[in-house]
Amino acid sequence: MDIQRINPSEKWSDVTVFNKMAHFVEVPADETADMLGQVKQVFAQAEAMLASVNSDKSRLVSVTIYVTDFENLSILNEAWIKWLPEGCAPSRACLKVELADPDYLVEIAFVAAVK
Amino acid sequence: MDIQRINPSEKWSDVTVFNKMAHFVEVPADETADMLGQVKQVFAQAEAMLASVNSDKSRLVSVTIYVTDFENLSILNEAWIKWLPEGCAPSRACLKVELADPDYLVEIAFVAAVK
Amino acid sequence: MDIQRINPSEKWSDVTVFNKMAHFVEVPADETADMLGQVKQVFAQAEAMLASVNSDKSRLVSVTIYVTDFENLSILNEAWIKWLPEGCAPSRACLKVELADPDYLVEIAFVAAVK
Repeated sequence: MDIQRINPSEKWSDVTVFNKMAHFVEVPADETADMLGQVKQVFAQAEAMLASVNSDKSRLVSVTIYVTDFENLSILNEAWIKWLPEGCAPSRACLKVELADPDYLVEIAFVAAVK
Repeated sequence: MDIQRINPSEKWSDVTVFNKMAHFVEVPADETADMLGQVKQVFAQAEAMLASVNSDKSRLVSVTIYVTDFENLSILNEAWIKWLPEGCAPSRACLKVELADPDYLVEIAFVAAVK
Repeated sequence: MDIQRINPSEKWSDVTVFNKMAHFVEVPADETADMLGQVKQVFAQAEAMLASVNSDKSRLVSVTIYVTDFENLSILNEAWIKWLPEGCAPSRACLKVELADPDYLVEIAFVAAVK
């Protein structure tokens, strides 16, 4: 099978890999956390996903960041800068939308290069 | 030509393929349908697009689902689960946004692996 | 290094290239311009980004266009059609969202094929 899927459920896979490109989307596991808590969860979950497909946070190609309130953007940006290894930033779009769970404050779609 | 385009119009192509990855975006052809009708149209259109580039719905890598009302999400999810072959779910983001035609209830952007 | 990054900053890179696919996102440099002005800036910036990675506007694979007001869509579409070489349109999604700077009227995420 040339497409790798991690934990395929009825609705989505945690990660897919094709052509050495990984696609995955993270929302915070604990949506009762505040913005910083949710962002940290998303980053930790992303690191676990990346590790599961032989990649890491230095290999992000593209991210689309969805927030529900731009008042939270500075919190996200500060954590983002701390989280990213130097010189490894991906292409990035950042948008305000509504998310499927009203308690979600952030959702991030990642594209990463697998080794 | 190393980029394949199906039905390129002035504004978009129905599908593009590069590096064995297909990109395409579907909105319902008949926007007067209800949510279930629109979702079924989008899925049928997606199957036709996939077939046109030697792929199928078991080979989706990533989808971004845009809905205009999360009240419709359960309808989408139920149809989505029925539509997807078992064990083949892509990475998936789901967002509420406004769509270009106020009658559109759903738009889906697909990335699929070509055989 | 198998991932190419153009101008990596703390938050994003201007362009990333992996597997001959370029990812980049443009917002207008001068957000005081009107819609047509902002769109023209985004297109000019995109051409510069494409040139920086040995690609051009005939090699777009996918675009996601974010606008803040669909009243501006006809202005975007007219400029888009003029800008795109014939027969080279990418896959395209177009959505209304809110953008990080309230003066931004348009943001476009591009995926392009590198030569």
